[in-house]
Amino acid sequence: MRENYNDYKDLVEEYLIDFIPKMDRNSETLYDAMVYSLKSGGKRLRPVLLLAAMEFAGGNSKDALPYACAIEYIHTYSLIHDDLPAMDDDDLRRGEPTNHKVFGDAMAILAGDALLNTAFEIMTKNMMLYFDNPKELKKRIKAMYAISKAAGIRGMVAGQASDIENENCRCSAEMLEFIHINKTSALITSAVRAGLYLADADEKIMRDLTIFAEKLGFAFQIADDILDVEGSAEKLGKRVGSDAMKDKSTYVSLYGLDKAKEFLTKLTDEAVDVIAPYYDNAEFFRELVLKLANRES
Amino acid sequence: MRENYNDYKDLVEEYLIDFIPKMDRNSETLYDAMVYSLKSGGKRLRPVLLLAAMEFAGGNSKDALPYACAIEYIHTYSLIHDDLPAMDDDDLRRGEPTNHKVFGDAMAILAGDALLNTAFEIMTKNMMLYFDNPKELKKRIKAMYAISKAAGIRGMVAGQASDIENENCRCSAEMLEFIHINKTSALITSAVRAGLYLADADEKIMRDLTIFAEKLGFAFQIADDILDVEGSAEKLGKRVGSDAMKDKSTYVSLYGLDKAKEFLTKLTDEAVDVIAPYYDNAEFFRELVLKLANRES
Repeated sequence: MRENYNDYKDLVEEYLIDFIPKMDRNSETLYDAMVYSLKSGGKRLRPVLLLAAMEFAGGNSKDALPYACAIEYIHTYSLIHDDLPAMDDDDLRRGEPTNHKVFGDAMAILAGDALLNTAFEIMTKNMMLYFDNPKELKKRIKAMYAISKAAGIRGMVAGQASDIENENCRCSAEMLEFIHINKTSALITSAVRAGLYLADADEKIMRDLTIFAEKLGFAFQIADDILDVEGSAEKLGKRVGSDAMKDKSTYVSLYGLDKAKEFLTKLTDEAVDVIAPYYDNAEFFRELVLKLANRES
Repeated sequence: MRENYNDYKDLVEEYLIDFIPKMDRNSETLYDAMVYSLKSGGKRLRPVLLLAAMEFAGGNSKDALPYACAIEYIHTYSLIHDDLPAMDDDDLRRGEPTNHKVFGDAMAILAGDALLNTAFEIMTKNMMLYFDNPKELKKRIKAMYAISKAAGIRGMVAGQASDIENENCRCSAEMLEFIHINKTSALITSAVRAGLYLADADEKIMRDLTIFAEKLGFAFQIADDILDVEGSAEKLGKRVGSDAMKDKSTYVSLYGLDKAKEFLTKLTDEAVDVIAPYYDNAEFFRELVLKLANRES
């Protein structure tokens, strides 16, 4: 495995734009809108997790690049649609104007649609290189299915829909957990699982790292809730306090800041414990969860 | 092959809702929004073409049902997003309030996203039944790739983006052709090609029926342009004259009504000619193109 998070991040960013299929010159604005959001930085957490999980289980991460880029396309589409006036109505993301502020609402909707569709297009195209190798096909189909399930109506879209429905009301602890797990943790977990499928990992690794990723994803969202109260707008590149302004229930609004921090610490500790038996091999994941829990942006 | 269009249509409608994966009870509104638009009628042209092409080439159409339903999900998502206030801002479709009029803009965006994602999810899930059969996998991967390409940035989304960009200006004949081919014809053509891939059709059939479908799809959109001027709002279930109101270039606005009708007749004749060598076997497709050219809704 590579040692540093940035080694994986650089690899993703090297290929992220190139995986967009060649488009007609009439589609220049659509291309620009897609690339604008893909290039706007971000942690690249999901593709990095996918590549790292692949290498953790003994695979070659270069083989997983179309799937890593695809999951970042899906994450990026969800941000573009989430920022729309009809949804969260955010003007800034990562310190830059959001997609619809630059390209207009219609093009932003289409750029999101385009990124979601392209994600599946490039994964499917990759499969076509392995027609004579059923074992390779099987790994890829399993990875794509894990991603599709987590991104859809039993994952991210379900979380978004419940998030929208529960604005302006104090939602139950169960509902908030449903939203956080589906909106954030599902796709993060599927990144790890897809990487493991691509490496044909054994069942024990699959089980342990799935639990690790679920806790990591959940912790990530609670850290987000805390940052929206305690974070610095400058470091975050967006307004703080926006959850409260939109009257969204969060771990902070429901349980208070101290209790939310307790949850975060507990989840982080549990995530670290799950991978402890892998000793040095899991050092990358251990560092990652600690870094994400203490992040400032 | 089945004799009547409605035999295929009934088959699609029998399975269309059932292919939606089981959702959490928290996602009831999202489910309702998806089903609302899926159930709002329509011709089911794309799935019918997919199933008919499959049987034309000797396949069993029941095997193609997940792909037929998936392409209708993709078509439906494109209508929901197209009707949004930020896009075409339509209040009525097929005589009923559009999705966002019933469920709100945010839920309509998510229902569209959900349908697109679910289309790929159910196609991928179907592949998982054939892990030990590389020949079956190959057919399915080719079908899914054809659909993904036609629905995306080198097909439908590209057409939509250019359509939006060219509102309020008289666009060139080349641009209008680009928009029509990509916005409408691409997905229709991919329906036929996907059906043929699933039946493992030979190259000659693939070539001939692809040309047929391209002409059918193009004719379908020109007929649409004509109906927007000459049609009856009652039969169409939506406003007529909406293209002119939105200052959209169409074959009628660019060439006049008579010339547009000439184009339509020419394309229809050419489509019929391409399949003439298949005699009675292609009777279904011959009837279909004539019916679509003369349709009233």
